[in-house]
Amino acid sequence: MSTKVITIDTQILKKNDIAAQENRDIFKQHRILAINLLSSPGSGKTSLLVKTCSALKEKLRVAVSVGDLQTEADALRIAGAGVPVVQINTGTACHLDAHMVQLSLKVLPLAATDILFIENVGNLVCPAEFKVGEDMKMMVLSIAEGHDKPLKYPLMFRESSALVLNKMDLLPYMNTDMNKVRNDSLALNPKLKIFEVSCTSGAGIDAWATWLSGFRS
Amino acid sequence: MSTKVITIDTQILKKNDIAAQENRDIFKQHRILAINLLSSPGSGKTSLLVKTCSALKEKLRVAVSVGDLQTEADALRIAGAGVPVVQINTGTACHLDAHMVQLSLKVLPLAATDILFIENVGNLVCPAEFKVGEDMKMMVLSIAEGHDKPLKYPLMFRESSALVLNKMDLLPYMNTDMNKVRNDSLALNPKLKIFEVSCTSGAGIDAWATWLSGFRS
Repeated sequence: MSTKVITIDTQILKKNDIAAQENRDIFKQHRILAINLLSSPGSGKTSLLVKTCSALKEKLRVAVSVGDLQTEADALRIAGAGVPVVQINTGTACHLDAHMVQLSLKVLPLAATDILFIENVGNLVCPAEFKVGEDMKMMVLSIAEGHDKPLKYPLMFRESSALVLNKMDLLPYMNTDMNKVRNDSLALNPKLKIFEVSCTSGAGIDAWATWLSGFRS
Repeated sequence: MSTKVITIDTQILKKNDIAAQENRDIFKQHRILAINLLSSPGSGKTSLLVKTCSALKEKLRVAVSVGDLQTEADALRIAGAGVPVVQINTGTACHLDAHMVQLSLKVLPLAATDILFIENVGNLVCPAEFKVGEDMKMMVLSIAEGHDKPLKYPLMFRESSALVLNKMDLLPYMNTDMNKVRNDSLALNPKLKIFEVSCTSGAGIDAWATWLSGFRS
């Protein structure tokens, strides 16, 4: 059985990589910076995007593709920030693949987009394995998830260019060892850029948004 | 492509179901209550098991199989509660399947076990799709994950017999709408038994442990 599974996984990943390259060509043609945003369920990806889109939209043209198994709740929240957004419902799939993202590109105003955020399905495992044509992966970790996540889910930390530590306002009420989070993350990925934010208080959002806008200024 | 993928998924699930039935037979033979414990990463499954094993072990013989991509950190924490535990490292797999659980049964003291907890990989999607031979699925949701999770990940809420709302000590610092969590969960699954606990303060653990022990008394 295992041989068969591996073969099929390879096929799926190969077909995905072809579609990812097509997406990459589309992003290049329109000079779009594409960011694949990853995290556990409930880390605050959507809250971060609402704050980030609000902070960036005066300077840059931002759009969002957002993946969820069901509901358009996240798209409605992001639309409130006044940016174009498409909800992708994956049904039972635990990650976005390049084909799903390609469908969303057909309805977004690509010629009027500088940065596209692709908010993946909440999952610390499979979304790290499927390229969707992005320039960079970035991840969000709620500090309420605990300090053991880098060592337990190493691929996502290795694959990401930035780590946003969210819900920093909860730190006084948690046992989370922030030095362990930072040290274990950097041991896996020495180039990882780490931000500390609170989407509730707004702390840290400006530094994160300024860093992001540097890629397109 | 989609036809091929669906065919393979079916094969995988069919082979998994055969192994799940074998596990079920093993549990029946040894009169073991097997509970498949599911949640997002960082909801507190391991903390809950440490507290639960401590509360139950004077009355019942408890054992644990715990799944993670990497590390034996969770097994070491659970072993601290003085119960037999096996760590299953799944590598890149985002869920436990029945074969993986079957491997752990070969090294656990089955003849001396009343309740086996199977702590799944942290993931709100795929673990709900793979039976491992369990009598019941139960899930943990950290209230720091937000009130939108039932509608966004409905299968897990439908499949679970109990929902443990953890990190209740954080409620004063959160915007989580607990009525929405409860109402949306019960709309998906009217028979769902809901517990509110804090593994940090210990609140609610006794009621949960007493309910669990009722299945084997």
